[in-house]
Amino acid sequence: MDKNFKLSDINNLDKIESLNGLFDGNNVFKNSANLVEKECKVLSSLKEAIIKSGLKDGMTISFHHHFRDGDFVLNKVMNVIAEMGIKNLTLSASSLLAIHEPLIEHIKNGVVKRIETSGVRGELAEQISRGLMDIPVVFRSHGGRAYAIHSGQLKLDVAFLGAASCDPFGNANGYSRDNDTGIIFGSMGYAKTDAQYAHKVVIVTDNIVPFPNVPAGIPQSDVDYVVKIDAVGDPKGIMSGATRFTKNPKELMIAETAADVIEASGVFNDGFSMQMGTGGASLATARFLKEKMLRKNITCSFALGGITGQIVKLHEEGLIKKLLDVQSFDLDAADSLKNNRFHQQISAYYYASPDNPGSAVNQLDFLILSALEVDVNFNVNVLTGSDGVIRGAIGGHQDTAAGASLSIITCPLTRGRIATVVDKVNTIVTPGKTIDIIVTDQGVAVNPLRPDLKEKLEVAGINITTIEMLRDKAASLVGHSLPIEYTEKVVGIVTYRDGSIIDVIHQIKEYDDESLDF
Amino acid sequence: MDKNFKLSDINNLDKIESLNGLFDGNNVFKNSANLVEKECKVLSSLKEAIIKSGLKDGMTISFHHHFRDGDFVLNKVMNVIAEMGIKNLTLSASSLLAIHEPLIEHIKNGVVKRIETSGVRGELAEQISRGLMDIPVVFRSHGGRAYAIHSGQLKLDVAFLGAASCDPFGNANGYSRDNDTGIIFGSMGYAKTDAQYAHKVVIVTDNIVPFPNVPAGIPQSDVDYVVKIDAVGDPKGIMSGATRFTKNPKELMIAETAADVIEASGVFNDGFSMQMGTGGASLATARFLKEKMLRKNITCSFALGGITGQIVKLHEEGLIKKLLDVQSFDLDAADSLKNNRFHQQISAYYYASPDNPGSAVNQLDFLILSALEVDVNFNVNVLTGSDGVIRGAIGGHQDTAAGASLSIITCPLTRGRIATVVDKVNTIVTPGKTIDIIVTDQGVAVNPLRPDLKEKLEVAGINITTIEMLRDKAASLVGHSLPIEYTEKVVGIVTYRDGSIIDVIHQIKEYDDESLDF
Repeated sequence: MDKNFKLSDINNLDKIESLNGLFDGNNVFKNSANLVEKECKVLSSLKEAIIKSGLKDGMTISFHHHFRDGDFVLNKVMNVIAEMGIKNLTLSASSLLAIHEPLIEHIKNGVVKRIETSGVRGELAEQISRGLMDIPVVFRSHGGRAYAIHSGQLKLDVAFLGAASCDPFGNANGYSRDNDTGIIFGSMGYAKTDAQYAHKVVIVTDNIVPFPNVPAGIPQSDVDYVVKIDAVGDPKGIMSGATRFTKNPKELMIAETAADVIEASGVFNDGFSMQMGTGGASLATARFLKEKMLRKNITCSFALGGITGQIVKLHEEGLIKKLLDVQSFDLDAADSLKNNRFHQQISAYYYASPDNPGSAVNQLDFLILSALEVDVNFNVNVLTGSDGVIRGAIGGHQDTAAGASLSIITCPLTRGRIATVVDKVNTIVTPGKTIDIIVTDQGVAVNPLRPDLKEKLEVAGINITTIEMLRDKAASLVGHSLPIEYTEKVVGIVTYRDGSIIDVIHQIKEYDDESLDF
Repeated sequence: MDKNFKLSDINNLDKIESLNGLFDGNNVFKNSANLVEKECKVLSSLKEAIIKSGLKDGMTISFHHHFRDGDFVLNKVMNVIAEMGIKNLTLSASSLLAIHEPLIEHIKNGVVKRIETSGVRGELAEQISRGLMDIPVVFRSHGGRAYAIHSGQLKLDVAFLGAASCDPFGNANGYSRDNDTGIIFGSMGYAKTDAQYAHKVVIVTDNIVPFPNVPAGIPQSDVDYVVKIDAVGDPKGIMSGATRFTKNPKELMIAETAADVIEASGVFNDGFSMQMGTGGASLATARFLKEKMLRKNITCSFALGGITGQIVKLHEEGLIKKLLDVQSFDLDAADSLKNNRFHQQISAYYYASPDNPGSAVNQLDFLILSALEVDVNFNVNVLTGSDGVIRGAIGGHQDTAAGASLSIITCPLTRGRIATVVDKVNTIVTPGKTIDIIVTDQGVAVNPLRPDLKEKLEVAGINITTIEMLRDKAASLVGHSLPIEYTEKVVGIVTYRDGSIIDVIHQIKEYDDESLDF
């Protein structure tokens, strides 16, 4: 009889020989509600959660951006962290928006040393572009971030994940089935990956609902603590109602052409799959495709990505069989996620990771993407504006372009006085090799890497031009912009989805007021 | 410009200063169905999957038992592994049944060195009890196994997980929505945890369906390879049709008493939660509870565990709001999982892990369990028969008893010539500290640790006896069994859910034919 026997001695036959009844039932725990209150994960404050999470100087914290410009969670958590005197944090967010402007102070005060995100907007982006941070911001696509987390390159110490509802044990969702507070954002896609891999996971909600809050976006098994705060977000900033169709004639023309291109390209067959963006042209393309689906009597097997009410409508009409939703773009989409069984939320890793052949982006037949700039090598910029200031996000742009059989950029040839098709983009975000076709209001260009597509479009009678001719036409309309002047300082590092560096963003050069007058 | 800059240099300001455009687009991959066939996870044979998984001598492989006695997967995989000459494996299964008898040869041939499981039955169990293996079998509860996997104490190198349907990218399920082959087992609960944690995950199916096979029991993001084989199981062995109510008067009497005990114990209130076993008495208890629910006009918030058609019926009648299903016990349950939205499959970890306060077992108000033996300390044996031979499984017995506010054992006082309530159980599986009440056909005994319950039952007019009186009554009916004789050799180690050892099982002593005649 060997009281010191451990299961790890299992291969040691000598030890097993003398093994005998070792049971000591004294430490057995009986969970009885009648004797003691059942343990739950709800803590009394964000401060308590931060303490229990073990957050220390220099660690990495994470947030999701499903509340978009209505997010209260990140700012509230950061305020408490700052009050507690914790410093030198790396902040990894799925994206940052204008509402996160208070981060400027936390950066100045040394609370946040470094940022990783898909994008930045608003005053925070302005100041980063003007040299706010010592260490450059690392930009990752949604798939790239999920891959970095999954592979351990990006270690998340504590994830603070806002939810529209959560039970006392951590089953969390982006909508509520009980005690609805009116906060709804739909899919928790970007948060799901953080919940799976972060060392400690704190759900922040304003709505504790009864166990079991299932189906759940995040299961209790991935959650350590739950904190209830007064309000997690502003419904107005989280999402609008159903996204409306554009009436802009330029966008309608682009959309109709894009739909014709899709039909001509050989990927528009029964059981096809697709992803549409939220831009006016993308949504209008879906409407033109619907007419074609009805005419050809075909249906779509699944639509992927950011889901909109327009896509939901096609699903409810039986034209799209399943929806794989990493982010619900409007209220109709969020409601559908709650009510339609085959509208399923998927994690960022499931959606777009580059290290898994099963990533949903790889199953896409076609894809409509937008662009701030496209260059003659088909490289796309969705991150910096024509003034060199950061004002966008990589999102799933790189991931979907690489995954889809046919990736189409829809954009107007010019926006105001700015050319969209240029010689060289300010910032390379999505490599031209993964972009197949550019559809503008002034013509369609096919990537020379895809002569097969060019031939199909010509057979279908679609008028094709070259990317160089689009560039020249844009220049003839708005002239050449003066080159943006930058300093030597790097303020942003743009990574490709596999974690390699594909471009850097420099600090923009400042002029005093006089020099702006020339 | 520093071509050697790596993201891990991000905190090195000197390096960043000289950083510049590093992008080399040559290794960018475009996934174009028109150019190359899209990569998928389907391999041509089990052998190829085993090779690609990197399986080597001495590693640990895992299987689930959702096919029960109709499982072809484990035997087929083991045959290929044996043919390939791989040796000294540890086999971790969620459970083993009579159909897994061919493992005997693999053990004799050195292919399998060690087994971890919830239980063993049939000839394999007989031979293990008679000393087949050098190293004892480690028995773990479902929650204990999930905890061991989650915490890294049990490392799974390759999981071979059978599925009723799977798409080419790994979304797998226990039923089919497309190309139905007639194989259906419902929840993949025990397999879900293996898929999350095993180093390599191989889905074995006879039914490849179109992407995306969602909702999925196992998401593609957890899967490395998919192999199609001719047949994964025998529907007759996998499950029967709907489990029928018992007509056995002894069981009906036990069930009616159990229902009265539940009503009297203070846990039978609106929104209660429960878990019922599959035994005749358990199912009949559900029927008696239904009458009480209708009379009291209350509903159940969720039913947990192995789900049966009887529980499904209550769900479909609106009496149970949600079903959390780790294992579907019959065809009606499996069909319901496919068709009822609030019938959700949960992982073994979610169900029962001892290291997470959110484990579903902790939310149980009451629970009906069965027993082979109960002793005067309320310890329960569900693993070894009255002859000392292994013939059962821990299952979730330990987990649910520890988690539920009220855990009730229902059993006949005697089975044939064998007493159920005894002085000391052959094998301690579930510690008496976690068992509250024993309901037999000859009386009800309350654990002295729960005087509160005893009082409530007395107030309700339920006739209560003591465990010692039940033991004496059993002995007076069938006499005392002769003690089982064992050798010194340990053939099984019974762990408690936290991984500690709570008992050992010895090899039974053999007699030659003459000595059996006395």
